[in-house]
Amino acid sequence: MATDMTLIWFSGSPPCWRVMIALEEKNLQGYNQKLLDFLKGEHKSQEVLDINPRGQLPAFKHGNNILNESYAACLYLEEQFKSQGTRLIPMAAPEQALTYQRITFCLLSKNMHIHFPEGERHDSSLKRHREALTAELKLWEGYLEKLGAGSYLAGKNFTLADVVVFPCIAYVFRFGLSEKNYPRLAGYYGLLKERPSVKTSWPKNWLETPQAEDKLKDI
Amino acid sequence: MATDMTLIWFSGSPPCWRVMIALEEKNLQGYNQKLLDFLKGEHKSQEVLDINPRGQLPAFKHGNNILNESYAACLYLEEQFKSQGTRLIPMAAPEQALTYQRITFCLLSKNMHIHFPEGERHDSSLKRHREALTAELKLWEGYLEKLGAGSYLAGKNFTLADVVVFPCIAYVFRFGLSEKNYPRLAGYYGLLKERPSVKTSWPKNWLETPQAEDKLKDI
Repeated sequence: MATDMTLIWFSGSPPCWRVMIALEEKNLQGYNQKLLDFLKGEHKSQEVLDINPRGQLPAFKHGNNILNESYAACLYLEEQFKSQGTRLIPMAAPEQALTYQRITFCLLSKNMHIHFPEGERHDSSLKRHREALTAELKLWEGYLEKLGAGSYLAGKNFTLADVVVFPCIAYVFRFGLSEKNYPRLAGYYGLLKERPSVKTSWPKNWLETPQAEDKLKDI
Repeated sequence: MATDMTLIWFSGSPPCWRVMIALEEKNLQGYNQKLLDFLKGEHKSQEVLDINPRGQLPAFKHGNNILNESYAACLYLEEQFKSQGTRLIPMAAPEQALTYQRITFCLLSKNMHIHFPEGERHDSSLKRHREALTAELKLWEGYLEKLGAGSYLAGKNFTLADVVVFPCIAYVFRFGLSEKNYPRLAGYYGLLKERPSVKTSWPKNWLETPQAEDKLKDI
């Protein structure tokens, strides 16, 4: 039981979800957790600021070690619990290179953030972001096509690339991405959805309202 | 001699510089390199697109393994050459946690990118980005104050956190950051500037024109 670990999180936040999937994959169940409400601004509380001066989630602690960024927490968990649960960074150089490459190029979430403050929104910038997201999704569709049906993002095995990228893929489908336009991504989404670590950590509010909006249906 | 490695790079690009520092620290000299000109758009050539479909640099190859993102390349080099040169990811959990945390929270370069297309520039958004950069720099100033004079970013030893973050620090000083307003960052900058891996890889065009602009002098 991972009773020396604490996770403060939002439901449906891809970065928070990543850490939860990593914890499940490393058999680190039973950690302390605190679910906060983004809309109430609970992440700006003193409790969170004491751990994370940026006031962002996830905020994660293992003993006295603080990891407030999802990539950092995932890399740390893999390194500290290498031989426990799923091996998330492959040993073989080609798969390892691909895993690191796919982890750090998870630009999907960045390109999803088209929420500019009112008054700074431009048709031109919305169009630019939409085009960037489309180009990015087509790349990932191409990766999966090259790897073949039933593959994970870095090959035959589930890796940290899947931990990091899957929540972003789930996010775009939640916003109406077309399974017809992106058949490989849809297949990958279907495969991962059934994985125990993903199922267990699936955002509760997403179960209640499976489809958010359909603003990505035409890209 | 790292003759099975190739780096395609821009001079003065923090992401490219990171990979060069990591290669030096891991004693991987003698790699093949190709310096491209950003202003001429040489990174959109077929040669680059064949390695990196996003047409961005650095583009890095080790044998057949491709790593086009600076974090990915650095993590891979450390993992593949763990016992060679400087150990960049500390073994001890507290230093390791801090290293991962500092690596992934290198938002400095992101906040520096205030180059919106003409017509999408707003005083409000420029102000917002400037405030975000100031807040971020104050955090790093605070980290160094807490660690004490002569420290690296994750403690007493030079780590991957320094490889990744130093080029961003050098960048802000090049844009006129005040040594008086940020004395710890200035001390850190002075310390790292003399490190052989940093000195060897210092951007040639920066030697010719040490100071770019002074747009950060008042933050």
